[in-house]
Amino acid sequence: MHVDKRIRHAGLAAKVMTAAEAAELIDHGMTIGMSGFTGAGYPKSVPQALAARMVATHERDEPFRVRVLTGASTAPELDGALARADGIDLRLPYQSDPELRARINRGEMDYLDIHLSHVAQYAWFGFFGKIDLAVIEATAIMPDGSLMASSSVGNNKTWLDLADKVIVEVNHWQPLEMDGMHDIYYGTALPPHRKPIPLLKPSDRIGEPYLRLDPDKVIAVVETNAPDRNSAFAPLDDCSRQIAGNLIEFFRHEIARGRLDKQLLPLQSGVGNIANAVLAGLREGGFSGLNAFTEVIQDGMLDLLEHDVLSVASATSFSLSPAGIERFLDKIDFFRKRIILRTQEISNHPELVRRLGCIAMNGMVEADIYGNINSTHVAGTSIINGIGGSGDFARNGFLSCFLTPSTAKNGAVSCIVPMVSHVDHTEHDVSVIVTEQGLADLRGLSPRQRAKVVIERCAHPSYRPMLQDYFERALHNSRGKHTPHLLQEALSWHQRFLDSGDMRP
Amino acid sequence: MHVDKRIRHAGLAAKVMTAAEAAELIDHGMTIGMSGFTGAGYPKSVPQALAARMVATHERDEPFRVRVLTGASTAPELDGALARADGIDLRLPYQSDPELRARINRGEMDYLDIHLSHVAQYAWFGFFGKIDLAVIEATAIMPDGSLMASSSVGNNKTWLDLADKVIVEVNHWQPLEMDGMHDIYYGTALPPHRKPIPLLKPSDRIGEPYLRLDPDKVIAVVETNAPDRNSAFAPLDDCSRQIAGNLIEFFRHEIARGRLDKQLLPLQSGVGNIANAVLAGLREGGFSGLNAFTEVIQDGMLDLLEHDVLSVASATSFSLSPAGIERFLDKIDFFRKRIILRTQEISNHPELVRRLGCIAMNGMVEADIYGNINSTHVAGTSIINGIGGSGDFARNGFLSCFLTPSTAKNGAVSCIVPMVSHVDHTEHDVSVIVTEQGLADLRGLSPRQRAKVVIERCAHPSYRPMLQDYFERALHNSRGKHTPHLLQEALSWHQRFLDSGDMRP
Repeated sequence: MHVDKRIRHAGLAAKVMTAAEAAELIDHGMTIGMSGFTGAGYPKSVPQALAARMVATHERDEPFRVRVLTGASTAPELDGALARADGIDLRLPYQSDPELRARINRGEMDYLDIHLSHVAQYAWFGFFGKIDLAVIEATAIMPDGSLMASSSVGNNKTWLDLADKVIVEVNHWQPLEMDGMHDIYYGTALPPHRKPIPLLKPSDRIGEPYLRLDPDKVIAVVETNAPDRNSAFAPLDDCSRQIAGNLIEFFRHEIARGRLDKQLLPLQSGVGNIANAVLAGLREGGFSGLNAFTEVIQDGMLDLLEHDVLSVASATSFSLSPAGIERFLDKIDFFRKRIILRTQEISNHPELVRRLGCIAMNGMVEADIYGNINSTHVAGTSIINGIGGSGDFARNGFLSCFLTPSTAKNGAVSCIVPMVSHVDHTEHDVSVIVTEQGLADLRGLSPRQRAKVVIERCAHPSYRPMLQDYFERALHNSRGKHTPHLLQEALSWHQRFLDSGDMRP
Repeated sequence: MHVDKRIRHAGLAAKVMTAAEAAELIDHGMTIGMSGFTGAGYPKSVPQALAARMVATHERDEPFRVRVLTGASTAPELDGALARADGIDLRLPYQSDPELRARINRGEMDYLDIHLSHVAQYAWFGFFGKIDLAVIEATAIMPDGSLMASSSVGNNKTWLDLADKVIVEVNHWQPLEMDGMHDIYYGTALPPHRKPIPLLKPSDRIGEPYLRLDPDKVIAVVETNAPDRNSAFAPLDDCSRQIAGNLIEFFRHEIARGRLDKQLLPLQSGVGNIANAVLAGLREGGFSGLNAFTEVIQDGMLDLLEHDVLSVASATSFSLSPAGIERFLDKIDFFRKRIILRTQEISNHPELVRRLGCIAMNGMVEADIYGNINSTHVAGTSIINGIGGSGDFARNGFLSCFLTPSTAKNGAVSCIVPMVSHVDHTEHDVSVIVTEQGLADLRGLSPRQRAKVVIERCAHPSYRPMLQDYFERALHNSRGKHTPHLLQEALSWHQRFLDSGDMRP
């Protein structure tokens, strides 16, 4: 029997088969936990083979749909393929695939948008029912049958623990040199048996390097050699730089007032160009000795680690550009000492986010003048991606910052509105709102006080008078004046956008 | 010098003065941290004397307003008196005084509605600025100058630690027999120096019995002899009993499915008649060996402790009726072993609520068909009381249950609406909605699936067809069908209520 350097367990080496053969082992109606987080570490081959089976089955007028639970977003080979095959009955949590999103918003399938720190425990509690199968990408299978995770950890521990059966995809593209970067915490328990999580700083390792796996549960091992999604980032634009600059100026102000140390506090940073701009701004601003306790390692984090701006970064996943991957592989021994990948119930755990006092920095769709945040919906009804981990960090961190350009769609949409069309973060959970126009520090302000600073500091000049007008008329005509609103008009900007494609009259 | 059994520190006994004399030491513009939580343990005398000074000052056309920070709600002697004197510039957090509420909703003063677990740390972080003065009710002053807290702990530790100066009200009405019930945790720290909180079960004592106090900060000691607010509860009505019955039936169902143990998990229970009905229902239902990790000890909790339904109750405050007080005093030795009063940053701490896996049961104003909850506002603009600790428990607990009658105002208002007019708890944070009509279990359901069960199970029959009609038209006409809405109509029920006093056309 051939035991190569990726599949080091003889019994599991004997279970190697093609993706098509593995997909034959999957049945209609199954609940499947899959690996994958922000386009990293998802299975690349079995989902596509499963999609092909689904299409063939549907052509015979027979049903074939499954429930798909992941860590977060995956890629066309998983969410795209299964959605195109009309093979997903229910999907959770975060997703970002265009085909999947279109089907959700046409009402053709169900989607649950859950805090990323809640997913694993809800599965343990039995709230999602039985997990029939786990389909997990690994970098290697160790001699004892445990798995070296690949470029994300996400909910893999949970799916492996709970699923009746397991299919492992061993991806030869994933660098074996990642060995030692993962930290899988096995100290969790169900209440009332839970203990404190013994993590005091982002660099602490509290777990094991490999994912435990009962080899008897494995029904197939499939070998692949395929890259992660690895989307390229757009070069930093002026708007992102201005947003980042406003936030960093605020950090300096807080340091000057003695409310933040020069080394700040552990950074949590959402994904995307604004987040990368903030990271770049920290480097240019001469910060050093910082650390990150976050979800995702983006290109910007590598940069900061290389320049000692960041000492350590704790996350649950990578989300690198092709250039970022090359850089990572070039200096993997350097990065292995400075990057820790954890399970997502730990990377996002409220206990840890609060203890560490994270500085949460997340993007958004829109904010309203009273500081409520919509992170997920266009005009209140169409989902974009999902709340992700923003709530885990915004609710529990030291500072909860939300960042957006002040307008979208070439100015046709204001990202500051009278009332958000969907609430993901309430007025109780938002410290700071930042646009390229400026920064609104909402700490200690009542709703009316917040409205003034949000309109003055964050709104685009082309919308500021409209917001001012709304607020002043609401101050006069609202029944209650704690949170003044004109209910007939509060969502009219969104309706106008739906009707005319522009929020402006 | 007379050192009586309540004021056991000679230096502080020398600072005894009248409330009027103490009020002379308070200046316009001060930020004052006061004791008090759900009408218990608030200063009874100095705020009234301060209000009198304010009125006199205002009569001379001079300004006199202060910022008032408390634990939660107080009583007419504090919030009522200061509001009536137009003496509050800003108030936080939770309040429930009619006069104060009216002024907030007329826009005459600012009010900040903050998660109760966040207040102390925001003060430590400096987010509220300098705390000039603490006015704290105590049961007694100990020989070393520390304070035996009275019927609530709330944020007293924080105000005593942070304030430049301290006024102590020693209330002879508060029973000295409470000695030993309080547990003041001094292991907190600012990030990055925080450690795990060493509490593993509701009965754990992790702190000290008395509030530390530097006697040099004390500028006045005032003696009082006045009862807490002690509102009587209405007898349980049929509607409350039905709501409670529906929830308890659900608990039994969860026990039968193996998702809950017979002893449930630590109960958190909001304040009011529905909460008391749930507690009564647990007793009648034969539950035993339960425990509570909650904010407030109500009459119903005493009942459960006496009958061994509850083994222990951890909270930060009492909120007893006059009959409840008598019962408590009659058996205070019994209750002292079974009740622990903590600081509110511990009673509501996200780390602990998640670790213990609390069952959160809170009232609400309205829910929408997608599971968003409004806990605070009438028709989106007028505040009622505040979010209190509901978010601390709903976000982090094992189960997050929201309870309400299906209608209010004799049927003129539906508590299930197309879209809530204010969001305090998002769709991501709500497991179960209960009315007297039934219970909607939202776990694992997408928005459209939630809408069906909320309408079917929770809405009042007189509103059910209207909700069904809205949902069906939204399913057809909504741009996005993930969360189907008709934006022009979504808040029209509230507008109709404002226009006609009735949500029905």
